[in-house]
Amino acid sequence: MFKKLVSSTLLRTSVVLALASASFSVTASDAAEQEAPRNLIMVIGDGMGFPYLSAYRYFKDGRGMTNRADIEYTTFDRYLVGAASTYPADDTLVTDSASSATTLATGYKTYNGSIGLDVDGQPLKSMMEYANERGMLTAALATVQITHATPAAFFAKVENRRQQNEIADQFATQDDDGNWKFDLLVGGGRDYFVRDGDDDNVAVDHLEHFRNNGVQVVESLQGLASAQSLPLVGMLADVNMPYVIDDQPRLKEMTEQSLRLLESADRPFVIMIEASMIDWCGHGNDIGCAMHEMAELEQLLDFLIPYVEERGDTALVVTADHSTGGLTLGADGHYQFRAAEVRRQGRSLRAMATDLQDMPWIDWEEYIETHLPYPLSTEQQEAIANVAEYEGDRHREAINEVLLDILNYHTRAGWTTGGHTGEDVPVIAAGPWAEHFRGTQDHTDIAKQFIEWINR
Amino acid sequence: MFKKLVSSTLLRTSVVLALASASFSVTASDAAEQEAPRNLIMVIGDGMGFPYLSAYRYFKDGRGMTNRADIEYTTFDRYLVGAASTYPADDTLVTDSASSATTLATGYKTYNGSIGLDVDGQPLKSMMEYANERGMLTAALATVQITHATPAAFFAKVENRRQQNEIADQFATQDDDGNWKFDLLVGGGRDYFVRDGDDDNVAVDHLEHFRNNGVQVVESLQGLASAQSLPLVGMLADVNMPYVIDDQPRLKEMTEQSLRLLESADRPFVIMIEASMIDWCGHGNDIGCAMHEMAELEQLLDFLIPYVEERGDTALVVTADHSTGGLTLGADGHYQFRAAEVRRQGRSLRAMATDLQDMPWIDWEEYIETHLPYPLSTEQQEAIANVAEYEGDRHREAINEVLLDILNYHTRAGWTTGGHTGEDVPVIAAGPWAEHFRGTQDHTDIAKQFIEWINR
Repeated sequence: MFKKLVSSTLLRTSVVLALASASFSVTASDAAEQEAPRNLIMVIGDGMGFPYLSAYRYFKDGRGMTNRADIEYTTFDRYLVGAASTYPADDTLVTDSASSATTLATGYKTYNGSIGLDVDGQPLKSMMEYANERGMLTAALATVQITHATPAAFFAKVENRRQQNEIADQFATQDDDGNWKFDLLVGGGRDYFVRDGDDDNVAVDHLEHFRNNGVQVVESLQGLASAQSLPLVGMLADVNMPYVIDDQPRLKEMTEQSLRLLESADRPFVIMIEASMIDWCGHGNDIGCAMHEMAELEQLLDFLIPYVEERGDTALVVTADHSTGGLTLGADGHYQFRAAEVRRQGRSLRAMATDLQDMPWIDWEEYIETHLPYPLSTEQQEAIANVAEYEGDRHREAINEVLLDILNYHTRAGWTTGGHTGEDVPVIAAGPWAEHFRGTQDHTDIAKQFIEWINR
Repeated sequence: MFKKLVSSTLLRTSVVLALASASFSVTASDAAEQEAPRNLIMVIGDGMGFPYLSAYRYFKDGRGMTNRADIEYTTFDRYLVGAASTYPADDTLVTDSASSATTLATGYKTYNGSIGLDVDGQPLKSMMEYANERGMLTAALATVQITHATPAAFFAKVENRRQQNEIADQFATQDDDGNWKFDLLVGGGRDYFVRDGDDDNVAVDHLEHFRNNGVQVVESLQGLASAQSLPLVGMLADVNMPYVIDDQPRLKEMTEQSLRLLESADRPFVIMIEASMIDWCGHGNDIGCAMHEMAELEQLLDFLIPYVEERGDTALVVTADHSTGGLTLGADGHYQFRAAEVRRQGRSLRAMATDLQDMPWIDWEEYIETHLPYPLSTEQQEAIANVAEYEGDRHREAINEVLLDILNYHTRAGWTTGGHTGEDVPVIAAGPWAEHFRGTQDHTDIAKQFIEWINR
């Protein structure tokens, strides 16, 4: 690692000189052969298959009837370099987030559900462990609980992703020398770190344990913004943060503050940043919800790409673990994707269903007109009225189904599943090492490249 | 064009020298800036969205229960360079084959259904017209009728793709100087070129007209193989050729013979080769059918890529006009794509439905067991028995629907539509000019690059 520390300034100079004197592709491949990047940034858009990129371009453009010969490319488009296959180490060909994140963290394929273990249940060494050995700082950000599959797989080892308490326990455990597994964790998940006791479990307060053992804990974005040192845990939600469509973007701010802290520690770093809830919107087949999460991710990239391009010593790759929902643009024989209609959706289906469940019937019409402002057919109005016959969770599900039918009808978003699908996912890269991720690769290759750089 | 003729040998030498002394990416971009390719090959996999590439990789591998850490990449994977957006010039964002082919031929977007006309109905100049002006040879190959949208858009101008007789008439019309629009056409479509008269139309025999005016006409692959000169029409089917799954691949042989004829004429050429029926299988949501068409296309590329790499003077780009069927790998909540089951399908759904329609009931069980050899549930057996209540076309459709349900159940192929969808499509390229097609681009850009090369 020391070699990297002393040479990063030299490297930056040589990159700039090379850029001035030759074409970009020459510079990049030459630079990358000479030297590993000082810092590594992996961004995972959970569930962000190729159709999400196409849909987002049209959502962002957002026009209705027009001669569309002038739709602008998004940041995703401008930095797309290739595709990655994501099949797990079983016969399904369709991965879950735990298995794919384990692969993106370790370079090895495993079974669906695994957090950091191989098909025989043996621990796989993640890039964060290699980085710790090399004295690099390690960090993970997510907009869901930090114990969720993707961030967990970069640090923890459990048989099944559902063991989120166990994952929190592992995050809160120091090694024999008193070292933490991480230098910086920012996301949700307070409910897993601070637990009441019951018959089977003792009460734990890992946040208190962190505070008592030299880990700063902040519980708001403002707290993160005023923090000055590592190690740090940013615990920003009891479980997940709200959907962007129901609240506001925060991933760029989380990242800016995290990079500020990492830089101030003046050591090379590896950071994994997950735009977590593209996937959750996809599971709900909620197109507007997914598009607002994509907008948050693009806002992040609009900050990160200039960051790595200016630094010249940091590799950035952006990919997905899988596609979710089987999204395609068009459905049921209609040659249409109504991006302008997607923009009119004002709230996630889940939030709407939750709100409506407890709302007097007399207020429903105005609420639906506000957040899902489409002209409703008689059948759609009748379907809404008919959900009154259900109760409890089934009531909310029935509301959700009716709203989803309306949304799909008006937007022509097509979905094949509430789960994941097995197509290749996009690979986006920026900075001097972007060339390494061109063309079709397997997701193992991305992790292997990161680990090779860490160990060089 | 003369400049290109004399310099092509020089160019080839410089490329080989450059390849020996520097990295590939340097060579390619330098070579391409110096010199346009002598010959241009555009291959269109009609309907071949990204999921078709992923599905085909697993179909080709074809194993069932195994640790799949060693799935080989296909030719598509190894030469993937980017993606292309395909939205038409209207508000739908989802193109049809006519509009997208017009764009790929001219560099301009237009309305769905257009063959060679812009949104105002004015003719757009195609790369084949530019090439004719420059003295280059022009050729088109398809596995459906050559009057179908994709090949038609490279030569003809009609308001609506359905005007296939008019398209045949345009192919059969010489200009004032006696020149044909093409030097080589190979595909199906005899029924459009040779028509009986009726009340509204006079009888025509364009094939006879071709023969009487210096155009050789062959009506079989053997005839094509023994042909020695251009211009030539290879009329290989009354309408479309059979699906590969029901017959055998032929696109490589058609292409090899076509290139032999083009080379023997010793002039630069532009050729469009369409793997036409990936799309037709996609419209039928027939996964096995689509995969066999993909296999035919890969076989073609395994011939074409070494061809362009050895020549060093020919650009090759492979793309799609749109995705069809909204294919994704996985459906209905199942985290699975059963590629091994797809391999067991022995015949297209359409051929099976046609065969079964006229088959005595007593023979059905054996026929279905032979071509769709999956264990059938009681419900599936009952569904098969129930189609007997229908007659005529509805009978065949009902058979098709039942077989499709069985196929989807066993393979977990997911589909959102019987039509097209609007996601970006893959871009594959080989040879010294492959760099030009990297990253995300619009399909207009591909055509514009071809036309720029022709006119340079």
